Amino acid sequence: MRLVHIFSAIPLAVFLLSAGKPVSNDNPHSRRTDTTHNHLFTVGIGGALIGGLYDGIYPYRDLKQHGDFGLGAPDKLDGELMVFKGKIYQTQSSGKTFEVDDRQQTSFCMVNFFQPDITLTPARSMNKTELFQYLDSVLTNVNGMYAIHINGRFSHIKTRAFPPVKEHQHTPLAQMLGLQHFFEFNNAQGDLIGYRLPFFMDNTNISGYHFHFLSDNKEAGGHIIDLTTDHITIEIDLLDSYTIQVPATSDYQHFDFKTNREEDIKSVERGGKK
Amino acid sequence: MRLVHIFSAIPLAVFLLSAGKPVSNDNPHSRRTDTTHNHLFTVGIGGALIGGLYDGIYPYRDLKQHGDFGLGAPDKLDGELMVFKGKIYQTQSSGKTFEVDDRQQTSFCMVNFFQPDITLTPARSMNKTELFQYLDSVLTNVNGMYAIHINGRFSHIKTRAFPPVKEHQHTPLAQMLGLQHFFEFNNAQGDLIGYRLPFFMDNTNISGYHFHFLSDNKEAGGHIIDLTTDHITIEIDLLDSYTIQVPATSDYQHFDFKTNREEDIKSVERGGKK
Repeated sequence: MRLVHIFSAIPLAVFLLSAGKPVSNDNPHSRRTDTTHNHLFTVGIGGALIGGLYDGIYPYRDLKQHGDFGLGAPDKLDGELMVFKGKIYQTQSSGKTFEVDDRQQTSFCMVNFFQPDITLTPARSMNKTELFQYLDSVLTNVNGMYAIHINGRFSHIKTRAFPPVKEHQHTPLAQMLGLQHFFEFNNAQGDLIGYRLPFFMDNTNISGYHFHFLSDNKEAGGHIIDLTTDHITIEIDLLDSYTIQVPATSDYQHFDFKTNREEDIKSVERGGKK
Repeated sequence: MRLVHIFSAIPLAVFLLSAGKPVSNDNPHSRRTDTTHNHLFTVGIGGALIGGLYDGIYPYRDLKQHGDFGLGAPDKLDGELMVFKGKIYQTQSSGKTFEVDDRQQTSFCMVNFFQPDITLTPARSMNKTELFQYLDSVLTNVNGMYAIHINGRFSHIKTRAFPPVKEHQHTPLAQMLGLQHFFEFNNAQGDLIGYRLPFFMDNTNISGYHFHFLSDNKEAGGHIIDLTTDHITIEIDLLDSYTIQVPATSDYQHFDFKTNREEDIKSVERGGKK
């Protein structure tokens, strides 16, 4: 296991010392938060998606104003979303993967403008558990927010995608795990797009690791269930703030956020009960 | 009880229909979130303040870039903060109230640029419970975020302020309720600065109503414990997104966010156990 470059040791140090420093702002009179650097933009509340709010709430063309990298869910669920290099891809439960129509909408999505602070090229193959342990050994701030891009070859990848729900169907996601379609790939070349988020973001988002996959030829993707790495390069973008855009739809206004959905969130992320 | 003006019926309608609409942006090429309108900026995590992280993390002069209205806590606790008309006031446990030095820091604060969408002038006197019920009858989106400014005369107001903690003291706030200093005012003229926040913001913030008081002459203030209104005007600013600036201090990096502090948060807000 070796770290080939930590080419941004200086930005990292600046980041760690940045508490209490002004948020940088190109125009000091603009009275805006800098949401271009180290900032995670999320639309929707994770707990609401898990609890059955699958309607599109935010157009893809607007989402692109807030980030070029990310993951989420399409309108009516209907698969999984990958935001990569400024384009947005959808993988449906048939496996079909395509670039979305910008006028359509996401039901929940998180994006950031990806600017790597750390680059790692681990020397050995790892399964999912080993990869997460390896990342934990590098990302030592347990309360930090990290965007993670992994490019390379995977000796095995298993993804999933949900089929679309019917109009006005609000079955909680954890009750639809039996409807997931799974896809397995050997010697797959492509990109993992994901995050490690801290515990205090649970309920509005999903804490821990969360990755989606997009193949090099953009013809396959989905939410990561399992993987074994071959030769990969890992890029980390350290984030220090996040925005939540809260939908004002009738469904959101009447949603019961008091129910504790932590176990549901975990089982949906894993793709099944423990 | 009568509503004298709802002068912004049109902006309100626009707000309710705004899900899925682009976030407005003066410069479409700026790739920034509009954090000037209907946006709550928070620095720090509520659960961390409640759990004992009282060190200043963000300078007041930077806080002013994100809002002209709000409430929070000073460095080392040392009382209560009121952000009003672009100025930041501190009430210490002695009762002394003054405008802060911009170079000093807050340990937790939320601010927004206050632009009223609804104005109400209730016709009768109300105690705190009745005021909150009255506001609930107007603010019908239980999952909405509302900034609330109440100006006028209060036949009775009771506030509190905490004394400063010692350097490196991290006693949880709920264990220091016995140290609060209370202040009572009759026929007080001034402003209540506050919010009603939805349940999903708990732990990172405080759900429900949360008000601080600032007297007309700026010589008294503090966190509201109890009140009875006389003649008041209520202004409501409907918010639709929020940003959390996560401090990168060593204390924050090592803080245990897994402990459930919901009961502590409620007892600190109330100023005592139920």
